[in-house]
Amino acid sequence: MARVVRGTPRTDLEIVDGLAALGVATIHEVQGRTGLLDRRLRPIFPAKIAGNALTCEVAPGDNWSIHVAVEQAQLGDILVVTPTSPCDDGYLGDLLAESLLAHGVRGLVIDAGVRDVATLTEMGFPVWSKCIGAQGTVKATLGNVLTPIVIANQAVNPGDVIVADLDGVVVVRREDAAAVLEKGREREANETAKRARLRAGELGLDIYSMREKLATAGLVYEDYAG
Amino acid sequence: MARVVRGTPRTDLEIVDGLAALGVATIHEVQGRTGLLDRRLRPIFPAKIAGNALTCEVAPGDNWSIHVAVEQAQLGDILVVTPTSPCDDGYLGDLLAESLLAHGVRGLVIDAGVRDVATLTEMGFPVWSKCIGAQGTVKATLGNVLTPIVIANQAVNPGDVIVADLDGVVVVRREDAAAVLEKGREREANETAKRARLRAGELGLDIYSMREKLATAGLVYEDYAG
Amino acid sequence: MARVVRGTPRTDLEIVDGLAALGVATIHEVQGRTGLLDRRLRPIFPAKIAGNALTCEVAPGDNWSIHVAVEQAQLGDILVVTPTSPCDDGYLGDLLAESLLAHGVRGLVIDAGVRDVATLTEMGFPVWSKCIGAQGTVKATLGNVLTPIVIANQAVNPGDVIVADLDGVVVVRREDAAAVLEKGREREANETAKRARLRAGELGLDIYSMREKLATAGLVYEDYAG
Amino acid sequence: MARVVRGTPRTDLEIVDGLAALGVATIHEVQGRTGLLDRRLRPIFPAKIAGNALTCEVAPGDNWSIHVAVEQAQLGDILVVTPTSPCDDGYLGDLLAESLLAHGVRGLVIDAGVRDVATLTEMGFPVWSKCIGAQGTVKATLGNVLTPIVIANQAVNPGDVIVADLDGVVVVRREDAAAVLEKGREREANETAKRARLRAGELGLDIYSMREKLATAGLVYEDYAG
Amino acid sequence: MARVVRGTPRTDLEIVDGLAALGVATIHEVQGRTGLLDRRLRPIFPAKIAGNALTCEVAPGDNWSIHVAVEQAQLGDILVVTPTSPCDDGYLGDLLAESLLAHGVRGLVIDAGVRDVATLTEMGFPVWSKCIGAQGTVKATLGNVLTPIVIANQAVNPGDVIVADLDGVVVVRREDAAAVLEKGREREANETAKRARLRAGELGLDIYSMREKLATAGLVYEDYAG
Amino acid sequence: MARVVRGTPRTDLEIVDGLAALGVATIHEVQGRTGLLDRRLRPIFPAKIAGNALTCEVAPGDNWSIHVAVEQAQLGDILVVTPTSPCDDGYLGDLLAESLLAHGVRGLVIDAGVRDVATLTEMGFPVWSKCIGAQGTVKATLGNVLTPIVIANQAVNPGDVIVADLDGVVVVRREDAAAVLEKGREREANETAKRARLRAGELGLDIYSMREKLATAGLVYEDYAG
Repeated sequence: MARVVRGTPRTDLEIVDGLAALGVATIHEVQGRTGLLDRRLRPIFPAKIAGNALTCEVAPGDNWSIHVAVEQAQLGDILVVTPTSPCDDGYLGDLLAESLLAHGVRGLVIDAGVRDVATLTEMGFPVWSKCIGAQGTVKATLGNVLTPIVIANQAVNPGDVIVADLDGVVVVRREDAAAVLEKGREREANETAKRARLRAGELGLDIYSMREKLATAGLVYEDYAG
Repeated sequence: MARVVRGTPRTDLEIVDGLAALGVATIHEVQGRTGLLDRRLRPIFPAKIAGNALTCEVAPGDNWSIHVAVEQAQLGDILVVTPTSPCDDGYLGDLLAESLLAHGVRGLVIDAGVRDVATLTEMGFPVWSKCIGAQGTVKATLGNVLTPIVIANQAVNPGDVIVADLDGVVVVRREDAAAVLEKGREREANETAKRARLRAGELGLDIYSMREKLATAGLVYEDYAG
Repeated sequence: MARVVRGTPRTDLEIVDGLAALGVATIHEVQGRTGLLDRRLRPIFPAKIAGNALTCEVAPGDNWSIHVAVEQAQLGDILVVTPTSPCDDGYLGDLLAESLLAHGVRGLVIDAGVRDVATLTEMGFPVWSKCIGAQGTVKATLGNVLTPIVIANQAVNPGDVIVADLDGVVVVRREDAAAVLEKGREREANETAKRARLRAGELGLDIYSMREKLATAGLVYEDYAG
Repeated sequence: MARVVRGTPRTDLEIVDGLAALGVATIHEVQGRTGLLDRRLRPIFPAKIAGNALTCEVAPGDNWSIHVAVEQAQLGDILVVTPTSPCDDGYLGDLLAESLLAHGVRGLVIDAGVRDVATLTEMGFPVWSKCIGAQGTVKATLGNVLTPIVIANQAVNPGDVIVADLDGVVVVRREDAAAVLEKGREREANETAKRARLRAGELGLDIYSMREKLATAGLVYEDYAG
Repeated sequence: MARVVRGTPRTDLEIVDGLAALGVATIHEVQGRTGLLDRRLRPIFPAKIAGNALTCEVAPGDNWSIHVAVEQAQLGDILVVTPTSPCDDGYLGDLLAESLLAHGVRGLVIDAGVRDVATLTEMGFPVWSKCIGAQGTVKATLGNVLTPIVIANQAVNPGDVIVADLDGVVVVRREDAAAVLEKGREREANETAKRARLRAGELGLDIYSMREKLATAGLVYEDYAG
Repeated sequence: MARVVRGTPRTDLEIVDGLAALGVATIHEVQGRTGLLDRRLRPIFPAKIAGNALTCEVAPGDNWSIHVAVEQAQLGDILVVTPTSPCDDGYLGDLLAESLLAHGVRGLVIDAGVRDVATLTEMGFPVWSKCIGAQGTVKATLGNVLTPIVIANQAVNPGDVIVADLDGVVVVRREDAAAVLEKGREREANETAKRARLRAGELGLDIYSMREKLATAGLVYEDYAG
């Protein structure tokens, strides 16, 4: 049996957009270094987006459920697709991208392949995928839409926030999104200050007071003897 | 014993150029989802080309036969190189590329490495390769030129058409090339019409009449219950 | 016990800059096809640099020693980082890059991950890495700085010259650097001449006098027979 | 902050042992082809076990939390370890295995490496791991014990049932365990009957009534024509 | 459209059995180092078999055509299965193996996964596969049976001889099988003689008269100088 | 130019045999977690050996230098072979193994492939290799014998001790071998004592006095709340 769950809650788009501005590395840090999807997911062109997870589980080599998912899309969603078994086929091309854009979807995160990459780039439809693969898919086996999934070693629920940029993809729980945004902005302010000191030549050893800890841990300095 | 077969037939360049315009994903579809080379072959810069396969089989770490192949090149060929055993070395650099361009070769498809990638890019010599590898090769063991080969899990005969773009590489049998071109053009026309409907917000579920089949297959819609 | 070796010798920057101009493939050839680091190290953006190796050995998922290494940096160094066990985490981001630039470091070669890739690209801080990874690292275990290391299957000593471009990364022993530079310039001159002949349509078979050797090795030419 | 959750519920061991007898492939089928961990997890010697998941999240290259987990072990548990970032180090050797056996643990499932493999085999301590790796780990960073985790692309909660054999590793939700056991036994009975018919030479085409469906789908039989 | 070709010719089983005795490495050598399937195909238990190729092309995650293939099996066949797109699912388990054995099939070579490995081993049904994978497959998309295929980078025609042992898998063209058998037996006789001399301590340098060639090629002997 | 260095020193075989008894994991620990070769090197059958490194550098797909190396073998050597570029071919089969055994060589460590694996196992000739590969090699390009090499990311000098078992392969510098043996024996004695305590049910938390450190680091115990 396959299910489509209608009306799952989304995260407020103002929060979502704030998280996009922070970027993946900062968000990953402020949520205690959690939530990062496997780094095999790479962008087909440089982009930085965030959106609500429109989750979709598909059979290997079968993209039927993606068509089902389009109808459930809301403005500000990111389509998040995971196969039930590893697959490199091209699940999505320019037609489906056109349809997703028409329904307000901001991009695609998929633990499989995509195709029509040149056209997707021209259209400005951002994709993070495991690979580029022209191999077509069939429409024979059902999958789930808007159910909780695991993708690229992270659990994602519908309406969780997905943030993706050149560093990869991170998921933020819907219930944590506001708090993560606030912490992320604090971290950013703090980093801006540190960055200025580092640019001026100050050492991390001093800024972070590492010298004593390094000595305690046993670090030995010696002079080159040829 | 190694062989060079002279005077193998080519596919008409008008057909070849028509196939280039269609691109890899469309051609793969219209020939019944066959002919796609393994997706480990990736372009060193974005390009879209087609040409007649100038096949070349080489020993691992040995590019001697590529020099032999250059002499057999005809205008509109693509050099297609496969090692007899997996190898990541850089079989070709800027000098060989210069020579291939001088003899009318449009690009290289190789299930191994290439080097001088910056220069090849400046020269506009397109390459699809397994990797980029600066490791040099020797000239000690013979290989075959213009014989049937298997490359990246596809059989390729001399004079088959190779089409390559950002989506990968596909082979079209010489005897099928005209028919594939015709079917491909039909498909393209058909897709243009569908694309307009999808852009206008129509759903694939309706365009492709999927709703009944989905219900028959057992798809269940339910409302979110928290 | 972990060690920092102060005052290790460097290679003269005039020689270093000469090697940068030659590039990786040429240098690899003139030193007898040795010194090439594993091709898994790839640039985050196109660049071509050379510098003195500022070596740094780190624990998996731990970048503490990179902070130690910054203090030892000299103008014209390249930071060369290897984990004691394979790791894909993001050891370095924009803050550390800022600090390295402030101390004259020209770039990073790391057999692990980096993050903040968009910012590093804007800053123009070149990196060759195994992957891009947003996963953060801790500061709990010591490593060595400016000791001899093995990275990506090559031994590198502090002050050896690292050259990196689109083709990969090569190491030149400090004691061989001047000789390699000279040989490389000779090779380049020689290649320029050959390149002109190849562009004019001369065949490598003739330029390199291969025809007799090919016949002796048993190469057979035959005509296509259908 | 890292947490240890004491007193998480377990699945009844009678059910657990029933699931062990069914094996991985059967369980995976009867729960709708879900629950299978990534196939990179392989046994260090042939074994077939089931147990309650004693979950443990560790830092890369750091096995500190495994020591914490031992104290929480109950008779019939399987230790299930996932690193927060991919790592191939040897997190567990013969000493920890001795300790786990002493506390009733039946085996280990780990998305990383193990070592002392010869001794573990002599001791009869079964392990499914990503690899064998002698590289030692440190004890510097905390992890979580008995919290929900994702391992090898599957979500696992403490007290879920882990079944592992030569085919791989599957997780059964604690709340579904009894029902899965019952369905599995039915499937097994059914398969025994079918197996006898197949051994006698009957065709699956007939047993499963496939001939009409194949014809409808367009399968064409033709005779060899040379 | 998918096809089943009935009545394709087989190679005489006396020749097939002779080739089994020679083994993969010897056969690969005597056919000029050709015919070796990619080494990712590994046995699930140690075995050495040969048989006529019963070729079968399947969709990713779909084993429908294997049921079709069983009916075409003849005594002495080896089932040779390739997916049209890379897939690691378990296409075959103990039931299908039972059915294949009942129809005279000697084993399976598959560029994908298998499951029920413990039972297959007890049954003595040998398999060379890309991996072990418990993931089940569907029966929705047709494939071809007894048509020419490419598997693991080698072209295989129905009735070609497949030889498989601990070293891997090799294909022998049906039309070459008798000649390859004869050459293989000569090579074996020759190797037995050489092996006795090597066991007695004679050097390959002398047996193969390599010393002069090594000197010509520039090999230099020097004494250790500390 | 390729070199053979005659008369390089070896480590005393009494020390070598003592190291074999300790095994890879223990040695790796007592030398400060250094010296481990990449874990892609795996045994073709379970074995535990140690010997003096007889180093050999070979071209990809070319085993000429292994014949040269045999003549330099001394009783108690292990042949250690690294290709100058990654290669999976089968560099050594039963004939070369026969020859090596005849000259006192205890086994092979190779960062490439081997073949005739069934015969090597019968002969009891232990091998640690990157893969099993039947692909034959040529004899056209020279390599070095008994020179310092880098193999599988570790530097190895002729006469260093190689220890290999089911856990992998480790190198011990010749000058450190006696000290490593002594420390290893101490560690082993210490572990035997600890193992008895762990078997009796004592916790590592208490034996290693971890409780306070865990609390300081912030570990929190909580009770399951549903």
